[in-house]
Amino acid sequence: MTIQYILEILGTGFFSISGALAANDKAKPDWFGASFIGFITSIGGGSLRDILLGSYPLVWIHDTNFMYAIFIGVILASVFFKILIRLRKTFFLFDTFGIAMFTIVGTEKALSLGVHPMIAAIMGMFSAVMGGVIRDVLTNEIPIIFKKEIYATACLAGAILYLVLNYIGCERNANFLLSALLIIVIRIIAVRRNLSLPKFTKE
Amino acid sequence: MTIQYILEILGTGFFSISGALAANDKAKPDWFGASFIGFITSIGGGSLRDILLGSYPLVWIHDTNFMYAIFIGVILASVFFKILIRLRKTFFLFDTFGIAMFTIVGTEKALSLGVHPMIAAIMGMFSAVMGGVIRDVLTNEIPIIFKKEIYATACLAGAILYLVLNYIGCERNANFLLSALLIIVIRIIAVRRNLSLPKFTKE
Amino acid sequence: MTIQYILEILGTGFFSISGALAANDKAKPDWFGASFIGFITSIGGGSLRDILLGSYPLVWIHDTNFMYAIFIGVILASVFFKILIRLRKTFFLFDTFGIAMFTIVGTEKALSLGVHPMIAAIMGMFSAVMGGVIRDVLTNEIPIIFKKEIYATACLAGAILYLVLNYIGCERNANFLLSALLIIVIRIIAVRRNLSLPKFTKE
Repeated sequence: MTIQYILEILGTGFFSISGALAANDKAKPDWFGASFIGFITSIGGGSLRDILLGSYPLVWIHDTNFMYAIFIGVILASVFFKILIRLRKTFFLFDTFGIAMFTIVGTEKALSLGVHPMIAAIMGMFSAVMGGVIRDVLTNEIPIIFKKEIYATACLAGAILYLVLNYIGCERNANFLLSALLIIVIRIIAVRRNLSLPKFTKE
Repeated sequence: MTIQYILEILGTGFFSISGALAANDKAKPDWFGASFIGFITSIGGGSLRDILLGSYPLVWIHDTNFMYAIFIGVILASVFFKILIRLRKTFFLFDTFGIAMFTIVGTEKALSLGVHPMIAAIMGMFSAVMGGVIRDVLTNEIPIIFKKEIYATACLAGAILYLVLNYIGCERNANFLLSALLIIVIRIIAVRRNLSLPKFTKE
Repeated sequence: MTIQYILEILGTGFFSISGALAANDKAKPDWFGASFIGFITSIGGGSLRDILLGSYPLVWIHDTNFMYAIFIGVILASVFFKILIRLRKTFFLFDTFGIAMFTIVGTEKALSLGVHPMIAAIMGMFSAVMGGVIRDVLTNEIPIIFKKEIYATACLAGAILYLVLNYIGCERNANFLLSALLIIVIRIIAVRRNLSLPKFTKE
């Protein structure tokens, strides 16, 4: 078990917590509904990436540790619900670490399958954000990443940095850390200063 | 042609009827829209299962009998619309038989592809309920299984019973019947007594 | 580079323009959101077709020209926004050419993979319309093809003509043009005369 593997499992569990909590805000689901949405939020991005790339088997189907992490996440979300909603700031940090890690892991995976770097960057970003998009569609909301302070674009920026450093021969672990750090820094600045991308049109 | 095959074809046709009727309630579609939603409701769950498992070709692409069943279902739904909406109780029974059968067929298929039993149970449940989830998303509703009386959880319970009986060596046809029966009994009790899962949180 | 290839690239770029504009009407997204929705509108239909058929790699993952066309389309959509919304009539023509071409290309591709002609016709129609369905779901609308003047059914009619002419031995390029022309003619008549399919039920 590498450190990265442990982080991926933790990230998956965390995403299921945040998915269940977000679902609860919007749809007032029962236990099954919250667990289901937590599950989809966790595995949606990576699954979509792998389906688009034709890369089978999907990680969570192959390795049940991901399922255990999701179950534990959903149970924690319900049991500690009141505490967790008071910890929104801590959550922001977890989410930021999560999307940074999933972006780089996804970019690497796509690259290892031989796709063009531009496609690899998009797949890295998809890994991080598409679970949330599916969660928003299921709870009947317009996906928040279409409007929110710089989020998916931070992932894209990190993926592009990874590709550039990879191209010039940067050592892999250093590259992973630097690229993830860029995503984290952009997110923190964007949230602190309430930065958004410009609207598509001015009207 | 086995009895099971005939039941699967009938189940598919029935799901297209119920999909077209449900779509009509919500979106007032034209003929094409109702047929399209009936089609998606029928094949959505099994298709998603097979795509997640990487199991090709998809059943309805390989075997056109499923398409004929869907077409006939949609036509029946339109022609006998007034009669059918008065038969909601009969419908409930058909739906219950349908999800019971699709759950066990889906669980068996996933198991035969070598996945972990936990994943097989989830895939069985997906086979039965995801067509309806996609139908609800297309008609701009929060999926009813997130809130409804015990539905997807009944499927999960049946799938788990199948796996347990399979593990202890129960004969396959007996197992199929017993597991499907559990789903049917849970559903009937849940609807009769208006049982729901607890809400995810009390607030 | 064949003429068809150039038309496909142009069609993809055009679909991203129309996706970005449609998204802007409904969701007021930021730059990223509009680009993302333009991207999904362009590649959604073909990707879904290929995923259902298990035909890998997906075209846009294999060939980056499609990505360039999408990027250029989204940038044009933003820069020339005011001009483009005044050109709705021209747009209608582009859209009509686009769906005609995508339908026939999709039908041919499915047929070349050995599926039943009925499935090939559905896959051709999916290629043309499912990008728009996904766009509508993401912007929280009931897909317009469920209600709009004859649209998806025009695609189906063209696909069926293609299959019939193919069956009786019609030369491929002549068949392509004739079948695409049928779609275009049906669409123009439907819009001019405001023709819709009948509602599914009269109530």
